Amino acid sequence: MTATTSPVLSPNRISASGERFRAARRQTMQLSKLLTPEDMMVQSCAEASPAKWHLAHTTWFFESFVLREFLPGYRVFHADFAWLFNSYYESFSAFPEKRLRASFSRPGLDEILRYREHVDAAMERLFEQEPEAEALRRIELGANHEEQHQELLLTDILHAFFTNPLKPKYRDQVSGVRGQKDREQGSEGTREPQAPLGFQAFEGGLREAGHGGNGFCFDNELPRHRVWLEPYALADRLVTCGEYAEFMADGGYRKPEFWLSAGWDAVKHNGWHAPLYWSEDRGGQKKGDPREIDWTVFTLRGERPLAELATTPVSQVSFYEADAYARWAGRRLPTEFEWEAAVEGQPVEGNLLDSGKFMPEPSTDLAQNENPTKWYGDCWVWTSSAYLGYPGFHPLDGTLGEYNGKFMSGQMVLRGGSCVTPARHIRASYRNFFAPETRWQFSGIRLAK
Amino acid sequence: MTATTSPVLSPNRISASGERFRAARRQTMQLSKLLTPEDMMVQSCAEASPAKWHLAHTTWFFESFVLREFLPGYRVFHADFAWLFNSYYESFSAFPEKRLRASFSRPGLDEILRYREHVDAAMERLFEQEPEAEALRRIELGANHEEQHQELLLTDILHAFFTNPLKPKYRDQVSGVRGQKDREQGSEGTREPQAPLGFQAFEGGLREAGHGGNGFCFDNELPRHRVWLEPYALADRLVTCGEYAEFMADGGYRKPEFWLSAGWDAVKHNGWHAPLYWSEDRGGQKKGDPREIDWTVFTLRGERPLAELATTPVSQVSFYEADAYARWAGRRLPTEFEWEAAVEGQPVEGNLLDSGKFMPEPSTDLAQNENPTKWYGDCWVWTSSAYLGYPGFHPLDGTLGEYNGKFMSGQMVLRGGSCVTPARHIRASYRNFFAPETRWQFSGIRLAK
Amino acid sequence: MTATTSPVLSPNRISASGERFRAARRQTMQLSKLLTPEDMMVQSCAEASPAKWHLAHTTWFFESFVLREFLPGYRVFHADFAWLFNSYYESFSAFPEKRLRASFSRPGLDEILRYREHVDAAMERLFEQEPEAEALRRIELGANHEEQHQELLLTDILHAFFTNPLKPKYRDQVSGVRGQKDREQGSEGTREPQAPLGFQAFEGGLREAGHGGNGFCFDNELPRHRVWLEPYALADRLVTCGEYAEFMADGGYRKPEFWLSAGWDAVKHNGWHAPLYWSEDRGGQKKGDPREIDWTVFTLRGERPLAELATTPVSQVSFYEADAYARWAGRRLPTEFEWEAAVEGQPVEGNLLDSGKFMPEPSTDLAQNENPTKWYGDCWVWTSSAYLGYPGFHPLDGTLGEYNGKFMSGQMVLRGGSCVTPARHIRASYRNFFAPETRWQFSGIRLAK
Amino acid sequence: MTATTSPVLSPNRISASGERFRAARRQTMQLSKLLTPEDMMVQSCAEASPAKWHLAHTTWFFESFVLREFLPGYRVFHADFAWLFNSYYESFSAFPEKRLRASFSRPGLDEILRYREHVDAAMERLFEQEPEAEALRRIELGANHEEQHQELLLTDILHAFFTNPLKPKYRDQVSGVRGQKDREQGSEGTREPQAPLGFQAFEGGLREAGHGGNGFCFDNELPRHRVWLEPYALADRLVTCGEYAEFMADGGYRKPEFWLSAGWDAVKHNGWHAPLYWSEDRGGQKKGDPREIDWTVFTLRGERPLAELATTPVSQVSFYEADAYARWAGRRLPTEFEWEAAVEGQPVEGNLLDSGKFMPEPSTDLAQNENPTKWYGDCWVWTSSAYLGYPGFHPLDGTLGEYNGKFMSGQMVLRGGSCVTPARHIRASYRNFFAPETRWQFSGIRLAK
Repeated sequence: MTATTSPVLSPNRISASGERFRAARRQTMQLSKLLTPEDMMVQSCAEASPAKWHLAHTTWFFESFVLREFLPGYRVFHADFAWLFNSYYESFSAFPEKRLRASFSRPGLDEILRYREHVDAAMERLFEQEPEAEALRRIELGANHEEQHQELLLTDILHAFFTNPLKPKYRDQVSGVRGQKDREQGSEGTREPQAPLGFQAFEGGLREAGHGGNGFCFDNELPRHRVWLEPYALADRLVTCGEYAEFMADGGYRKPEFWLSAGWDAVKHNGWHAPLYWSEDRGGQKKGDPREIDWTVFTLRGERPLAELATTPVSQVSFYEADAYARWAGRRLPTEFEWEAAVEGQPVEGNLLDSGKFMPEPSTDLAQNENPTKWYGDCWVWTSSAYLGYPGFHPLDGTLGEYNGKFMSGQMVLRGGSCVTPARHIRASYRNFFAPETRWQFSGIRLAK
Repeated sequence: MTATTSPVLSPNRISASGERFRAARRQTMQLSKLLTPEDMMVQSCAEASPAKWHLAHTTWFFESFVLREFLPGYRVFHADFAWLFNSYYESFSAFPEKRLRASFSRPGLDEILRYREHVDAAMERLFEQEPEAEALRRIELGANHEEQHQELLLTDILHAFFTNPLKPKYRDQVSGVRGQKDREQGSEGTREPQAPLGFQAFEGGLREAGHGGNGFCFDNELPRHRVWLEPYALADRLVTCGEYAEFMADGGYRKPEFWLSAGWDAVKHNGWHAPLYWSEDRGGQKKGDPREIDWTVFTLRGERPLAELATTPVSQVSFYEADAYARWAGRRLPTEFEWEAAVEGQPVEGNLLDSGKFMPEPSTDLAQNENPTKWYGDCWVWTSSAYLGYPGFHPLDGTLGEYNGKFMSGQMVLRGGSCVTPARHIRASYRNFFAPETRWQFSGIRLAK
Repeated sequence: MTATTSPVLSPNRISASGERFRAARRQTMQLSKLLTPEDMMVQSCAEASPAKWHLAHTTWFFESFVLREFLPGYRVFHADFAWLFNSYYESFSAFPEKRLRASFSRPGLDEILRYREHVDAAMERLFEQEPEAEALRRIELGANHEEQHQELLLTDILHAFFTNPLKPKYRDQVSGVRGQKDREQGSEGTREPQAPLGFQAFEGGLREAGHGGNGFCFDNELPRHRVWLEPYALADRLVTCGEYAEFMADGGYRKPEFWLSAGWDAVKHNGWHAPLYWSEDRGGQKKGDPREIDWTVFTLRGERPLAELATTPVSQVSFYEADAYARWAGRRLPTEFEWEAAVEGQPVEGNLLDSGKFMPEPSTDLAQNENPTKWYGDCWVWTSSAYLGYPGFHPLDGTLGEYNGKFMSGQMVLRGGSCVTPARHIRASYRNFFAPETRWQFSGIRLAK
Repeated sequence: MTATTSPVLSPNRISASGERFRAARRQTMQLSKLLTPEDMMVQSCAEASPAKWHLAHTTWFFESFVLREFLPGYRVFHADFAWLFNSYYESFSAFPEKRLRASFSRPGLDEILRYREHVDAAMERLFEQEPEAEALRRIELGANHEEQHQELLLTDILHAFFTNPLKPKYRDQVSGVRGQKDREQGSEGTREPQAPLGFQAFEGGLREAGHGGNGFCFDNELPRHRVWLEPYALADRLVTCGEYAEFMADGGYRKPEFWLSAGWDAVKHNGWHAPLYWSEDRGGQKKGDPREIDWTVFTLRGERPLAELATTPVSQVSFYEADAYARWAGRRLPTEFEWEAAVEGQPVEGNLLDSGKFMPEPSTDLAQNENPTKWYGDCWVWTSSAYLGYPGFHPLDGTLGEYNGKFMSGQMVLRGGSCVTPARHIRASYRNFFAPETRWQFSGIRLAK
């Protein structure tokens, strides 16, 4: 978080903070509206958490780091929640093992909702009391934290529903005009010829990377620092499901020469033979050539035939798969700095959470677009950069210093946001990170050369 | 199941079958009344299933093996439920991996309840149509199957609540007179001097074992056959928590000489140092001698101080722990045939599910009892007998043959029922079985010599 | 060990003990003659030990339990060997983890051989000094212990050589007349028509089981006790490789209905599709029907085509496979008591270690034999009996009590010895035991009904 | 490997190649002289290989990539060795699982030595025939490959001997004058006051990294490219055992705040509480404060008391431990580029394999040295740089392209060589790499700020 200190806070700034807070809180509730209390119990893989836990943990953040310190006389909602909904902050309290979150049938959803109301009401009292600058900084951090968990909530529920043998849909129709357009995509849109993959060249040189402005950023985006880039080019769109199917048809998952050694181990150990949510159609009988298989792709809007998604960006692939695809294609993945240098100054536009689509959209729409390159949205792009601290990096002081820095090992950086990232959450300097074998998030591929 | 065939069924027999069916179904609903839909989602260990799954699977049993075959025109409630709620019957259908049951947020509890009602109503139609003998036999089997899942439901929810860091109670007060008496036990009853452990001698000789009468039994209780027993004696009560604490204080979990080799491996591998639900009191500071530790014991009625349970039978121990305790005590565990020969002909009396206590009760009550030995209830007793087929054993024909026989490997027999076993479910020839390292069930120790 | 005590020992008995000791020691050296020091380092699976360790551990047994206690003034060869070569006697000393035995490059084989000589020489001094009865009893136990490790040494080296990609042979030609006959078997013998499987009936009734005479036995063969047997019949020979191949061709490894539940789990988890040492011929291309595959079978005498072994007993199968085969064949496995009652009083004849064949021999030879049933040798037969203590079982006192009793959990009994069991080691009451999933020992199938 | 092509090769260059080859081969034999054939069988952890395998695999490299392609009429020594001693080159042949290498008792050491002689003789014939430039390039690569395996052989044998409960020494006395000096270190040298840790400052700016000259380098050192460095400083010596013991005494292994999240997981999962080869003295009784424990440190020259090694660089620590130590010390680890920029142009001096010490030497010797900073030797230093390809990196063509590039995932870069790295093998641009949790190699800590 940037350390912009201002001893006297303007009413405008307090008011803006309140709006920021309320918008983030409202959006979480909005997203969970379609889920039953039972849906919110499911924790279907080690990476995921139950939706109910996301609702509680984001609330815990404001209670623990804002209200307990900055609202005089604040009474905690429940004494045990302080450690029950701590995720991983070792210096704050003990916390339950992550895998136990699926056991939290009590407190029930109704009690979690009362917890949210209790904290929201207390936050309103805080806003009325002219909070100090550090409180506002933490509220900003908390709102961003909550937005991250909005994305996780949707990412996790997609996995939960995929794991359910009945394959329920998070959302069936998408609303308004989009819904109409969306239905057309399924029938006609994807039959449009695929936009050929183009590359946009960049000069390189001595550039600056990291967050530079006055707005909010996470500590891992700082300090802004110089990096040297050789000339490079980035693809003008993401790799599509159709293109990825060609990689598969060419023996992508059977030929070690495309893979990093650790990636090939992952292929064999996990039996990977397609992206995470691709299934061979139960009714289909044809085997052999993956292009002949009637693949379906599971999305938040249910199972879709692969044939409908030929020009839609491929998603839910690991770093290893992205890297192998790039090697097969004779290209490579971009570094995080190449991506950032290309994008800096561009408007945040693309298929983000605000579109209400909840899945990547076909690249064929690009043809209708003046701006040839959508840098943001659809899927996070895996970069070839390991997630490390920038030169001179210092974590936040105290417990909040455990937010980002301690994960700087064994993970790769992703950039650009996805169809479940709130638009106001993403920016050019934003660094997401996951271990290279994880596949449950909305992660895709943008080639470089 | 006994193969008593009778071509024409008396109305009485049909009516009795209906009563049997309704009683079993009603009791399941009764037991789940105290649980929220969210509680019913939890699957907190590999052995357990969510309560909701138990509700559905028991219903699936009647639909699959009774209604589909014997009720003309029966329409299944939901086509996918046939495989969704299959547990392990390979010859019936594919079935989901057991660990996925925690993902079944859909169908929701409300739909599962409608499934139960749909099947119950169809069963009533069947009863009106004078079902054939095979149908009645399967209904009897289904009622017994449902009773087994009643015990599992409570066993599993105890584990679920133990796993929840907030340690909720399944039931707080027990009702009626029992409740009153129960409260007294906590305060005074356990201060009564413990009944000294006595042994009842038996002559042995050539005896018969296995089910002999006309009533229902499982296939694994047949055929009745001869066994030779040397003279033996059985303890007149179960080992208590207080006695078990002495074993612990004497280094029970630290001395390999008390343990089978596989048991000692389990101690070291799992870090066992007390029965499953014993915890060191969070507030307590004293360490070292286990008798000095303020242990608490988690039960369906919440956490209890060990001090209150000194004369209550120890429960939730593995076969290895039971065997090690017996060796430490200079005794041994009984064989299943020793137990059966001792008990045959005795009335089924004891602290079973019907007592409404939901936990073992103190053995001090024995003093007030004319009958010195309670053979049934409180805890299943681990025997020294491996679970194998009797001479001439044949599983049931068809799919139902997968009920018992295929588990005859690597498991030990338990006898006598527990405080969560329905009284009408248990009998002298009844064989329960679990792997020797399992500890989540209500299993305890009766010594032999 | 039988507790025959005699205060004054006759010179004959001492002399016999010396002969017994020397013969056992000599045979170990004889068997290891074909191995290089490097061969003796290999520990290729968790069950196995390096041959060099077997040489040292059997020596340690005499040093620890005989010389240290009964030879006044005995000086240990090396102070650290007391714990270094302890296998699992918790009450004797700490001991290294089993998997570390592959690290014992030091002491080198030459030093181990000197250790053997040192102990052998000290034993001769003991024999000259008129040892007391307890010493002779332990020498008898030690000789039997060494014979067990002779079998293990060959069993383990077979696995070691199977693991070596070059597939070396322990022994190529077998010597003398046997060698000639043996070569004929490979070319003509196996083309003889297979002896049809016959069954020999037994009456059952109240029988005695367990060791009864004056000779040596292990504690787990005692006490002799009564068992009731229903009438039964046992196959007059072991199941052959050819018959087992038919089971495979009939989908033996693909159909869950043949398997115990734990066995089916083992099939899937371990990818079993044939006995342990059967391999698809590298040159062969035909797939599909297992009968069409050019299987080879790895033996101590190298890789053999399955076609040559059609009438040779199948070996290196797990209990689960034996049990599944029996179910497929419409038969069952015998209990250990059925086997013992049938065999008691029969001479110990069969293809045992003394034949020098080092692998099972074809059952076609039976035709030339007056005695229709070879009860001993070729392969141990899996019984349906769990390995448990007999009624009134007591382990030996002290450390030697850890020999057998502590393994009475989770294992099945095998009977009859194998082609690598010394003839003088086996008897009717002899109980071998292994976990049901182990396959590396010479274990086969004798059907019962 | 640099792509310096020259159509006609001067006799000098051929002669130099021959010398290079012979020196590398000779040194391998020299290092293995102290090992028995049995020692050479041990593979004591997943990372390690048996010494005998190293001898064979390095030979295989020359046979596979030089002789088979460039020596007309070359006859392979043994047809199976082509795949038997392949390590991981997927495009060359199938290869045995790494863990099977401990099973290679056959071929025996004597045969491996004949294999070496066979290949060495053929190489001499090649040198006589004026090999083409590509052959010389591969010989250079093969010699460097063999030097890497010299380091691995010693690293692995140290682990093997540590695993042996008798803790043998690879080498007892070091020879000549060194031996004398060495003995003094043990008695007096380490009592000299420790040199205080100083830092040497560097300016940073736009620098070049990667190999630049004409000599040999690996593909992962190319291409030379520009990097931007902020001003920085590096410690003038490595962290010592004494300093590391202070970290331990301050709760280093008990406080999560010093650790990366993945590092803390590794501490808990593996039970780390000291560097890999530190053991609590068996005779010692004092516990609690790690400074009070009589630690011993296992080295290639046997077990040494920690007290003697107070000023000796700490070795055999993981990246996570190096990183945690740095955080505890208020410093950080250097990036690989900071290290390279500091060292470029410095002579390769330090305690490398050629010193014959086989373990790190005390930093107190620095006082006697004009040059205050020893950049090379003792231990590889963990950098904070993930092991990734340089901009424009291309692996070698063909099979040899599997040498380095496919491991560019999940590993950290180490720089500077160790006491078991041949001096001629190391250089400023040299990149070693290991997973962050590995600890069996000679890896230590140089702080940066």
